[in-house]
Amino acid sequence: MKEILELGDLERAVYLIFEEKVPFNRLLGVKVDSIEEGCVRMKIEMRDDFVGHFVHRVLHGGVTASVLDVTGGLAAFAGTLEKIKHLPFDEQVQRFNKLGTIDLRVDYLRPGQGQWFVATGYILRIGTKVAVTRMELHNHNNKLIAVGTGAYTVS
Amino acid sequence: MKEILELGDLERAVYLIFEEKVPFNRLLGVKVDSIEEGCVRMKIEMRDDFVGHFVHRVLHGGVTASVLDVTGGLAAFAGTLEKIKHLPFDEQVQRFNKLGTIDLRVDYLRPGQGQWFVATGYILRIGTKVAVTRMELHNHNNKLIAVGTGAYTVS
Amino acid sequence: MKEILELGDLERAVYLIFEEKVPFNRLLGVKVDSIEEGCVRMKIEMRDDFVGHFVHRVLHGGVTASVLDVTGGLAAFAGTLEKIKHLPFDEQVQRFNKLGTIDLRVDYLRPGQGQWFVATGYILRIGTKVAVTRMELHNHNNKLIAVGTGAYTVS
Amino acid sequence: MKEILELGDLERAVYLIFEEKVPFNRLLGVKVDSIEEGCVRMKIEMRDDFVGHFVHRVLHGGVTASVLDVTGGLAAFAGTLEKIKHLPFDEQVQRFNKLGTIDLRVDYLRPGQGQWFVATGYILRIGTKVAVTRMELHNHNNKLIAVGTGAYTVS
Repeated sequence: MKEILELGDLERAVYLIFEEKVPFNRLLGVKVDSIEEGCVRMKIEMRDDFVGHFVHRVLHGGVTASVLDVTGGLAAFAGTLEKIKHLPFDEQVQRFNKLGTIDLRVDYLRPGQGQWFVATGYILRIGTKVAVTRMELHNHNNKLIAVGTGAYTVS
Repeated sequence: MKEILELGDLERAVYLIFEEKVPFNRLLGVKVDSIEEGCVRMKIEMRDDFVGHFVHRVLHGGVTASVLDVTGGLAAFAGTLEKIKHLPFDEQVQRFNKLGTIDLRVDYLRPGQGQWFVATGYILRIGTKVAVTRMELHNHNNKLIAVGTGAYTVS
Repeated sequence: MKEILELGDLERAVYLIFEEKVPFNRLLGVKVDSIEEGCVRMKIEMRDDFVGHFVHRVLHGGVTASVLDVTGGLAAFAGTLEKIKHLPFDEQVQRFNKLGTIDLRVDYLRPGQGQWFVATGYILRIGTKVAVTRMELHNHNNKLIAVGTGAYTVS
Repeated sequence: MKEILELGDLERAVYLIFEEKVPFNRLLGVKVDSIEEGCVRMKIEMRDDFVGHFVHRVLHGGVTASVLDVTGGLAAFAGTLEKIKHLPFDEQVQRFNKLGTIDLRVDYLRPGQGQWFVATGYILRIGTKVAVTRMELHNHNNKLIAVGTGAYTVS
């Protein structure tokens, strides 16, 4: 956490946390592509050990769910940026610390074939306690592989 | 697939497929604990790279979702065993091949602290096309960490 | 059913079924606004007995869920029109007969205040067995009140 | 609201609110059967105008969703009773006032045939902001018709 607090800048801290400081994100190799208030994008490369079938080379449903969960969480946090930007940096990180998934729905639409995947997260509602987001996962050919909806605690 | 077809026994094939032949399951180290017609159990050990937070040592929501998805899928398949047990072995494996998640809901109830976790899957409905399952994830202290509901294609 | 089969035209039959022949739809007064292959729209007027709170005049969550379910079902059916338009009329009605909701998620985003509401349903995926749809409910001021996702059996 | 505040007793107030003061609940005729801290039960009679199909006499998916939503909300509120029982009565009603559905999933397992239906709601988690509940709908023959999961704001 000290390394994060030394950054002094929330956007850099968020990149560092999502890509480096959350071990399972690092294992998956998810990368933050862009963060805007209403919309965020993440990327993940296909890898042999992400395959979820014993015959077909398709993304495991758990990888899909993981990436959509992370993307929804990032979108939820991005939705709070406007409200917290006046706070001191360590309080901003404290807020970020409290972000948590309440629930997640994933709909698997097409076999997860692709060289890489882009996950997009949108805010549907940002309240004082709860944010609701929608997520989409497209493959490198821009085919829609899966969608999701998540509820997150924010504060 | 050839290695699987050489087994000649569906239950052994299912263990082999879930634990060894699905790469992402192997990466996670999920183990099949028991398979009964109405209920299945899987286990997963906590590992440093499964952590989902930059401060707290808790299971990543994506690992939880992955394990619940796999467990629901196994429960759905176990629910079809009675119907397919009269079929030749290679047709049984073909049926297994067609198993797919339609959608998944995960509810994160408590921080995923634990040395290992047990996921249980129950059949709620088994139809000719679609199975519906409920799943639970408990930690080594039998604390309920998360629950899920999934719809799966079966045939 | 005889009255429906006398129509000889699927689109008129669908209007008749949704608005008149499904008793609970008639109780709610839901109206089909438009049916296109990828997108359908329904309307419902606010009424005193639709209120879901003991203090505030907001739509009951059950009315919202009902309208989104119906709209998703109509979208799912509309998605099959292309495939079944070559069939004889009574077989088209048979297909329609088999339409069923597998599961539904509803996210309540804002208090359901409004004079009337428009529900929109989109197809995300149309398979041989299962269709997946997304739905939105806007009020008369075009404020997004709720969203939903549904899985439906089609055949 | 004045009528409610005159009761001076939370349990009687909850019955009054759920059965009489929420107009759509009254339209559906849902009755509170029992309220315990971890589990609540509601009942609803089948009626001609609850039918959801143009051929078969089955409960409309929207009625099912409505009853499960109400039952989950009651379970969520019942889960807070222990925490709020020391508060003055009008503050208890204020808390109740803030109860709201965040999201709801319904799984339709079997055709909703029955003379009457019993909905049961269980608390899975009760936090300071959010409660998570599971619900089941059985018919008069104790057949499981549908299940649901809901997240609710509590305070």
